[in-house]
Amino acid sequence: MAQANFGVVGMAVMGKNLALNVESRGYTVAIYNRTTSKTEEVYKEHQDKNLVLTKTLEEFVGSLEKPRRIMLMVQAGAATDATIKSLLPLLDKGDILIDGGNTHFPDTMRRNAELADSGINFIGTGVSGGEKGALLGPSMMPGGQKEAYDLVAPIFEQIAAKAPQDGKPCVAYMGANGAGHYVKMVHNGIEYGDMQLIAESYDLLKRVLGLSNAEIQAIFEEWNEGELDSYLIEITKEVLKRKDDEGEGYIVDKILDKAGNKGTGKWTSESALDLGVPLPLITESVFARYISTYKDERVKASKVLSGPAVNFSGDKKEVIEKIRKALYFSKIMSYAQGFAQLRKASEEFDWDLPYGTIAQIWRAGCIIRAEFLQNITDAFDKDSELENLLLDDYFVDITKRYQEAVRDVVSLAVQAGIPIPTFTSAISYYDSYRSENLPANLIQAQRDYFGAHTYERTDKAGIFHYDWYTED
Amino acid sequence: MAQANFGVVGMAVMGKNLALNVESRGYTVAIYNRTTSKTEEVYKEHQDKNLVLTKTLEEFVGSLEKPRRIMLMVQAGAATDATIKSLLPLLDKGDILIDGGNTHFPDTMRRNAELADSGINFIGTGVSGGEKGALLGPSMMPGGQKEAYDLVAPIFEQIAAKAPQDGKPCVAYMGANGAGHYVKMVHNGIEYGDMQLIAESYDLLKRVLGLSNAEIQAIFEEWNEGELDSYLIEITKEVLKRKDDEGEGYIVDKILDKAGNKGTGKWTSESALDLGVPLPLITESVFARYISTYKDERVKASKVLSGPAVNFSGDKKEVIEKIRKALYFSKIMSYAQGFAQLRKASEEFDWDLPYGTIAQIWRAGCIIRAEFLQNITDAFDKDSELENLLLDDYFVDITKRYQEAVRDVVSLAVQAGIPIPTFTSAISYYDSYRSENLPANLIQAQRDYFGAHTYERTDKAGIFHYDWYTED
Repeated sequence: MAQANFGVVGMAVMGKNLALNVESRGYTVAIYNRTTSKTEEVYKEHQDKNLVLTKTLEEFVGSLEKPRRIMLMVQAGAATDATIKSLLPLLDKGDILIDGGNTHFPDTMRRNAELADSGINFIGTGVSGGEKGALLGPSMMPGGQKEAYDLVAPIFEQIAAKAPQDGKPCVAYMGANGAGHYVKMVHNGIEYGDMQLIAESYDLLKRVLGLSNAEIQAIFEEWNEGELDSYLIEITKEVLKRKDDEGEGYIVDKILDKAGNKGTGKWTSESALDLGVPLPLITESVFARYISTYKDERVKASKVLSGPAVNFSGDKKEVIEKIRKALYFSKIMSYAQGFAQLRKASEEFDWDLPYGTIAQIWRAGCIIRAEFLQNITDAFDKDSELENLLLDDYFVDITKRYQEAVRDVVSLAVQAGIPIPTFTSAISYYDSYRSENLPANLIQAQRDYFGAHTYERTDKAGIFHYDWYTED
Repeated sequence: MAQANFGVVGMAVMGKNLALNVESRGYTVAIYNRTTSKTEEVYKEHQDKNLVLTKTLEEFVGSLEKPRRIMLMVQAGAATDATIKSLLPLLDKGDILIDGGNTHFPDTMRRNAELADSGINFIGTGVSGGEKGALLGPSMMPGGQKEAYDLVAPIFEQIAAKAPQDGKPCVAYMGANGAGHYVKMVHNGIEYGDMQLIAESYDLLKRVLGLSNAEIQAIFEEWNEGELDSYLIEITKEVLKRKDDEGEGYIVDKILDKAGNKGTGKWTSESALDLGVPLPLITESVFARYISTYKDERVKASKVLSGPAVNFSGDKKEVIEKIRKALYFSKIMSYAQGFAQLRKASEEFDWDLPYGTIAQIWRAGCIIRAEFLQNITDAFDKDSELENLLLDDYFVDITKRYQEAVRDVVSLAVQAGIPIPTFTSAISYYDSYRSENLPANLIQAQRDYFGAHTYERTDKAGIFHYDWYTED
C-alpha cells in the first residue's frame, strides 16, 4: 500500500470533494469514513485516482507519512470530539489534526489546548465555498500552531481558490488556536448581512416599484457588472431567471418566505455582544430570518395591523440607482462592523489577525467573494492598524457620495411600509459612528439616578456621582 | 437570642435595605456578612430594630426558625456559589435559600437542580427598584419550587411595592427554577430599550429642533402626564432640571456620552438569539451603548465623515407631538418583542410564565414601572394565549393611529443625519411583523443555490431542492 501524503476522515460530500481536490494536485490521499461502505463507494467512483481506501482508523493512520496531516470533515460538535478521541491513541507527537468543519471557535480553542498537552498539533480551519468550492477551490481560514500550519500550507495553497485579480491563493494563516474558525464565523455573519441587504433591495424593487421578476433580474445582472460585482449578486440574478420546476411561473415566487439558518450568524452576533462591539447590521439580518419564520403570525397580523398604501409615482430609474447605492453603502457598513469585531476579537484572544489578508483570501472561493474586498485589502495595506474601515479615504469618499441615496431609500421604504431592517441599521450606524456627541450622556445620568452607577465628565477626568435625591 | 423569622446574607446596600424592609413589616431578621464589622455597623445603626446580629454562618443559621428562609444578597457568580457551599452543611431538608442577586438564569437553573438533590429549596428572585426600592418596596420576580415560594410569599407580598392602580403587591410566582431571574433579565433588557428610546427622543429635540434643556425638560414633564407616564420619563425630567454640581450650566451637558452596562441587556439579546426570537429593538439599544463607548473613534470620524446639515423649518409643536407618538409606538414594539421572547422561553424551559401577571408586578417598584403596563395586563386578561401584543385590539388601535408619526420622525431624523437605531428598528419590526410576505423566499433560494439547504413551497407541503446548476 502506498504511503499517503494526506488523510481525510469523513466522506460526506464536503470531505469527499476536499479529498478529491487534494488528490488532483498530485497527492496520494487516504480516506476513511466510520461507515466503511461510504468509503468504498467513494473509492470505487474514483478508481483512477490516488486514493488509499482504509477501513479502520488504525489502517488509516498507518497509511500516512509522518508527520501525519489528517483533515477531519465530520459533523461539528460531539462527532468531532468522538473522532479526535478515537484517533488520539494512534497518533504520534508532531502529527497534525485539521478540523475543517463548521466549528464554533471556543470548541477549537479548547481542542487546540487539550491536544497540545499530548503533543498533537491542532488546526481549525474555516472552509467556505460549499460543495463546489471544496472540490474546485475553497477559501480557507486556518488557525492553530504556526509551525504545523507551515507543514500543511503547500497543500492548502494548491487546493485553495485563486483570486482573479492576482492569482494569489485564498488561504493564509489567521493566528493561534481558534483564529481560523473565528474568522470563518464572521465571514458567515457577513454573508447573512449581504443576503438580507439583497433581499431588502429585491423587496423594494418588487413592492415599491412594482417591477417584474424579469425586470429585477435585469437590474441584478447590471449591478453585477459594477461595484457590487460579487457571487451573491451573481446567484441572485441566476435565481431570478429560473422557472418553477414543479409548475408555472418563476421558482422564486413559489419558495416559502421562511429563512432557515445554521447558527453561525447567531454566533457572530453573540460574540459581538460579548466583546462589546456594535454589530447591528448582521444582527438585524439574523433577526430578519427569525421573524420570517413566524409566518402564521405574520399572516394573521397582516389582516389586522394597518400600514400605508404603496403609491409610487416618481422616476423608477432614479430610485433603482439609489437602491444600488444604498446597497453598496450598507454593505460597507456591515464590513466595517465585521472588521471592527475582528479587531476586538484579535485583542481579546491575542491573535494578531491579518485584516488585509483576510479580505484578500475572501476574494475568491467563498460565498462573500466580491470585487469590493480589494478595497478593504488596500485600506489595510495603507494602514494595518486602521481602527475602522470608515476612516479610510476610499470609504470616506464613497459614503460621502452615496449617503444621500441611502437616506432617500430609507425614507421611501419607511413611508411605504416596507421593512428594511438592515438598510436602516446601516444608516444608524453611520450616523452614530460619525457623531462626536451621542445622547448616551442622558443614559449615564439615568443610570446614576436610579442605580448610583456613576459617570465620567466631559471637562475633567474621574468618576462622578450626582446627589440626585437632594433637590437643588 | 430571639428566633429570627428571616435571614439575610450580605450587608451591602441592597441586602441591608431588604433586611430593613422585612423587619419593618414586623419580622425579626437575622443578618450576616462575611466581614463581621459590616454586620455590626448595620446592627448599631439600627439598634431599635428587630435585627439579630450574627458573626458566623453557624450562628446565623442557628438563629433562624425552621424551615429557614435565607436570602442571599451577595455578588452574582462565584460569591453566590461560595456562600451556598458554606451554608449547605448547616441547612436542613426543606430550608429555603433565596438568591436575590442579579444572577444569570442558567446559574439559577443549575443551582436549583443541584440543591434539590440535597432537599434544599432554591428560589432565584429578580429584585428591581435599586437601593430605594429594596428599602421601601421593590418589584420582585421569584422562581423556584412553588411550595417553597408559598412559605416566603407572605413576607414578599408585604415588602413588595404596591401598584397604585389597585394596591396589589408587585410580586408573584413566576415558575420553576430560573423563571424569576429570566423575567428579571428581560425586564432589564426592556429597560435598556426604554432608555435608548428616551435618549433618541432627547437627541431629536436637541439636535433637530434645537431646543434648550429647559424646553426639553418641560416636554418630558408634559409627556409624563399622559400615556408615557413612567418612572424613566419622570427621572428624565428630573435629570434635565439639575444644575452642574461642579460648575456652571446643566449637569446633563457635563456628563460624558459613554454609556456603561452590567451585561443584563446583552444576556437578553443572547437568549433571544439562542431561542430564535426576533429582539431587534433591545439589541439595538445594547449596541447603541457599545458604540457610545467608542468616543475617541467617534471624535475622529466626526472630522472626516460627512453628513447632511440640520435645517429644520417646520412646525416644532407638531414634530414634538410626533416624537411623543413615535416614542410610545416604539415602546410598544419593544414590549411586544420582550413578551414574545418570554413566551418562547416559557415553552423552551417549560415554565408556564404568567404574562399578564408579569406586566402587573412591573406596575410599581421597578425601573420600567409605567401606566402603560396595565394595557399589557388587560391584553393577557382578554387572551392568556395571545401570541404577540400587537394582535391585541388596544395595540392594533394605537399602532394604526401612531404609525404615521413614527414614519415621519424616522424620515426627519435620517434626512437630518441623527442616529435613531431603536426608532428605525421599531418601525422595521412593525412592518416585518405585518408583512404576509417577506423577501425571505430569495434568501431560501440563495441558500439552496450555494449550499443545497432546501426550501419549502408556498403551494404544497414538503422539502424541496432545485437543480440550480443545470441551466433551463
